[in-house]
Amino acid sequence: MAGVFEHTVNVRWRDTDALGHVNHAVYLTYLEEGRDAFYMWALDGSPMYVVVRLEVDLRAEVRHQDRQVMVQIAVERLGTTSLTTRETIVTAARELVASARVVTVRWDPDQREPIPFSHDERARLTALVSG
Amino acid sequence: MAGVFEHTVNVRWRDTDALGHVNHAVYLTYLEEGRDAFYMWALDGSPMYVVVRLEVDLRAEVRHQDRQVMVQIAVERLGTTSLTTRETIVTAARELVASARVVTVRWDPDQREPIPFSHDERARLTALVSG
Amino acid sequence: MAGVFEHTVNVRWRDTDALGHVNHAVYLTYLEEGRDAFYMWALDGSPMYVVVRLEVDLRAEVRHQDRQVMVQIAVERLGTTSLTTRETIVTAARELVASARVVTVRWDPDQREPIPFSHDERARLTALVSG
Amino acid sequence: MAGVFEHTVNVRWRDTDALGHVNHAVYLTYLEEGRDAFYMWALDGSPMYVVVRLEVDLRAEVRHQDRQVMVQIAVERLGTTSLTTRETIVTAARELVASARVVTVRWDPDQREPIPFSHDERARLTALVSG
Repeated sequence: MAGVFEHTVNVRWRDTDALGHVNHAVYLTYLEEGRDAFYMWALDGSPMYVVVRLEVDLRAEVRHQDRQVMVQIAVERLGTTSLTTRETIVTAARELVASARVVTVRWDPDQREPIPFSHDERARLTALVSG
Repeated sequence: MAGVFEHTVNVRWRDTDALGHVNHAVYLTYLEEGRDAFYMWALDGSPMYVVVRLEVDLRAEVRHQDRQVMVQIAVERLGTTSLTTRETIVTAARELVASARVVTVRWDPDQREPIPFSHDERARLTALVSG
Repeated sequence: MAGVFEHTVNVRWRDTDALGHVNHAVYLTYLEEGRDAFYMWALDGSPMYVVVRLEVDLRAEVRHQDRQVMVQIAVERLGTTSLTTRETIVTAARELVASARVVTVRWDPDQREPIPFSHDERARLTALVSG
Repeated sequence: MAGVFEHTVNVRWRDTDALGHVNHAVYLTYLEEGRDAFYMWALDGSPMYVVVRLEVDLRAEVRHQDRQVMVQIAVERLGTTSLTTRETIVTAARELVASARVVTVRWDPDQREPIPFSHDERARLTALVSG
């Protein structure tokens, strides 16, 4: 799909829990790793941001022997301080593991409050909004 | 509020990240710890279950010096294999940290598929559905 | 034992791995939680510190149904910038889970280097060195 | 160095703590990820094992912007049920981050007790003992 960024995440043994699969909270860490890589790619750097809203459908288990999953990030909407992304986790065989809509907010770590994206960040991210 | 179960969670240093606050993925672990305690209380045991859908609004930071947060669990809807809960994280001072709607499914770890709640589990959980 | 501080840690489902027990790396997190509580008790506050050396013998599994473990901290030796502690994890039934010797160093997070304990910290910690 | 296996680990944002660096407990997870890859390479599969003893010297911070570290595994000694390895974490620039000696034990997850390495595992691992 045009405009979709993809990043490979290695499954760690520590990601599993006693049900023998990757714990559901770790799915957010996989999405975060993909999102951080997306930001590096889109903005040539890692802006500080926080997650303010999540909707996640968890569709399939991931097990340690899967070794890797892919995270896909597409930009849905850009606000003054916020970015809404559509995020999916798929297996190497492209089976859907989870799909999410995530709202993140650019963050000033000193003031501990949202700040607007810069003009340059805005231009780059706007170009990535899915049609 | 009637029908709301509450459980205290200790904040660990390991829960924080380099923004100086508890990482957003750990909020799901806090909710899970509260939910597991809820199940112990409601069903006299920990049934196996998996999380299939999450909606989470993250409203405030938690920092290590907060030491503790409270997780509140209320039952919204009971299905054949699924339970929908309203879950919140609040500070000791009752400030809202996060609110969530979570759908979990009773799970057969051997077959790796959903199973219905037992008659007894159903009776106990139905009695807890918020009016 | 005289001079031993003890702190209770709640076992989280997220602490387990696919072998059905608490992952060995989480033992360090349990020790850290006990050590942070020890510092709060000994120094009326949480000094910044880093771990520079660990020796750990892991003797028994912890499972989610254990619910709680106890961490015990005893001071072995105080240096200019370092503190050596003997640390154990035991079950509620006082079975030994793990025993460790840990060297931590007082840390200046701005300079990112060790700093000496203050005169007051030194006096308080010296009083706790096991005979 | 002859006989040293090396594996690359991606640093995740979740690995950091509020001191702005990778938490010390996560160093064990990095070593575990390297050890699991070592076992896959040495034995064509992931045997079940548990960690029974650790000695770790932590020499340098890892920060999120380091992006990757390398884990090196060398076999020091093979026992009937146990394997002793020398393990190091180094940066991409080959700076030493941590060095460890780790004793692991082949594990029967059903009986929850140690089991001997098989004849084939023993032959393969013996060939890797550092001279």
